[in-house]
Amino acid sequence: MARAAAEDPDTTRTRIMAAADRHFRSVGYTKTTVADIARTAHMSPANVYRFFDSKAAINEAMARRMLGKVEDHVRAIAAQQISASQRITAFILGMQEQARERFLDETRVHEMVRAAMEEHWTCIHAHLQVIGGLIGQIIADGARAGEFRVDDVEIAAKTTLNAIIKFYHPLLVAQRCCQIEDGDEDRMVEEARQMADFVIRALGG
Amino acid sequence: MARAAAEDPDTTRTRIMAAADRHFRSVGYTKTTVADIARTAHMSPANVYRFFDSKAAINEAMARRMLGKVEDHVRAIAAQQISASQRITAFILGMQEQARERFLDETRVHEMVRAAMEEHWTCIHAHLQVIGGLIGQIIADGARAGEFRVDDVEIAAKTTLNAIIKFYHPLLVAQRCCQIEDGDEDRMVEEARQMADFVIRALGG
Repeated sequence: MARAAAEDPDTTRTRIMAAADRHFRSVGYTKTTVADIARTAHMSPANVYRFFDSKAAINEAMARRMLGKVEDHVRAIAAQQISASQRITAFILGMQEQARERFLDETRVHEMVRAAMEEHWTCIHAHLQVIGGLIGQIIADGARAGEFRVDDVEIAAKTTLNAIIKFYHPLLVAQRCCQIEDGDEDRMVEEARQMADFVIRALGG
Repeated sequence: MARAAAEDPDTTRTRIMAAADRHFRSVGYTKTTVADIARTAHMSPANVYRFFDSKAAINEAMARRMLGKVEDHVRAIAAQQISASQRITAFILGMQEQARERFLDETRVHEMVRAAMEEHWTCIHAHLQVIGGLIGQIIADGARAGEFRVDDVEIAAKTTLNAIIKFYHPLLVAQRCCQIEDGDEDRMVEEARQMADFVIRALGG
């Protein structure tokens, strides 16, 4: 296995995850085995097991990486030098865009996501804490600048996170995307914009 | 079949649906056959087919009946002689209560709900139109009474419906209920109350 030996562990992990992703999306999460993943990644199952304990561990690593990318994307939005209201809008649209890029393929995604939500609740919970924290930061900035009037920043952030769930929850995003007809995609962005305006008003902006 | 002959068709339909419901919840929607349902309802499969074309048709009838009950419940709330803000709060809590009564049993419910959402989207879409219409009524009342300040009642109603999806969408309610620990149930009601306050502020109340 000259290739595996020459490769650094992170690259190998990425290669395994990419192979798993292809399989999960084409064959489905349940029906994919570690042997399938190994074959696609051009390595032995034993080598896959050197990096991951199980198929579930691969799915968890994929979920973590994906959630991390979403966090990086919206963290950059939260740090922009624009008004808090503008950041709230950009943040909501950014969450939606990230979810839609990843969860358009309903049938296959459903199984992966459901497995991740059942088996790796902790990592999703941690992700929601991060996202809620970033929203809280924007709200606190807005309150300091006199742009928002908010009694309790933490409650406001959590409630905002709940209000926008339709735009980032994989199962809801995927479900909506099943229904896409002409112009429907624009309508979804329009809905997210209307929600942003609604949230800004709720925050006293 | 003396019993079936003596029974009016509505009672028979209800009996079939009750038998199906028991099976869907205990064995799962996919694994249940019309023969299973017939056996539990003490009738022949042929008799079941006199009332329903397929298992999917039974599930659809169950979904329609259930959604109708939810509509009746919140229609009564929308008609109460209390302020629009109080009705918004009662409406959101009512939607949550109805969903939690029905979707506590995650694993089994998931299949039924998913099948219903895939096969009978029209009846769910119609339900959401009804619920959105009732919210619109409350908002319009509030605007007339000077309690709310709203530019577009229809957009406000639709956005409110989106904002509270976490509290009525079966998959989200069921998912949450999986996570119940001590005191968690109260926390869910608390979250819905916080959302009601948030929505009222967004409506200018």
